[in-house]
Amino acid sequence: MKKIDHIGIAVKDIKVSNALFEKLLGIQPYKQEEVGSEDVLTSFFKTDTTKIELLAATNENSVIAKFLEKKGEGIHHIAFEVDNIEEEIKRLQNNGFEVLNEIPKKGADNKLVVFLHPKSTNGVLIELCQSIK
Amino acid sequence: MKKIDHIGIAVKDIKVSNALFEKLLGIQPYKQEEVGSEDVLTSFFKTDTTKIELLAATNENSVIAKFLEKKGEGIHHIAFEVDNIEEEIKRLQNNGFEVLNEIPKKGADNKLVVFLHPKSTNGVLIELCQSIK
Repeated sequence: MKKIDHIGIAVKDIKVSNALFEKLLGIQPYKQEEVGSEDVLTSFFKTDTTKIELLAATNENSVIAKFLEKKGEGIHHIAFEVDNIEEEIKRLQNNGFEVLNEIPKKGADNKLVVFLHPKSTNGVLIELCQSIK
Repeated sequence: MKKIDHIGIAVKDIKVSNALFEKLLGIQPYKQEEVGSEDVLTSFFKTDTTKIELLAATNENSVIAKFLEKKGEGIHHIAFEVDNIEEEIKRLQNNGFEVLNEIPKKGADNKLVVFLHPKSTNGVLIELCQSIK
């Protein structure tokens, strides 16, 4: 739980925002991936260390569609890489954090992911992710 | 503009949030610093790569007090380390980004900082920072 894997940013239009972040960072996205289970289209930029993931909704039921409606474009979550996601879930629950999905689900970038409820983490939506081997 | 230096998180009470992030990350903050020019008290956690900066207001005129009133606790900004802040300001302005303070100011952690207006960056408040030698 010590390494930040990526920062997720909710955007309305992935093409428009890809162009914007290309200008901002001076680099191209290295991949684009649709995550069917979440109804999102993602685009990844690799900074020196932490990645940036743009997230656009693919339909109105997407969590990103709901986020955009409520808060507008902006930072959506911070993701921490963990070695053992089940152990980390237990450790965090024992420390009073609320896990949104106890059973890790398949996220973008070949990872298992769980989210912590922002009300238990200072308003910050935190993702734990573990690479699938 | 390729390395994320830190993620800034607005909090109401630095003591309460220090304790929360100690539990979350399993580490202690490595320093606490008041930035008079911004009316903020900061606390830094060092993850493997990117740092996490908690920001609390020291008075009601602080930008953090205004942020908390409008949006509540949560992620406030992403900071990118740059080698030459003046050149990066010019490059970004030439690319249509709006710089909030054209003259870099002294921020926390011995750095010169400028901010980009979130309306030009997908709703994300972006800080550029350059270490003062």
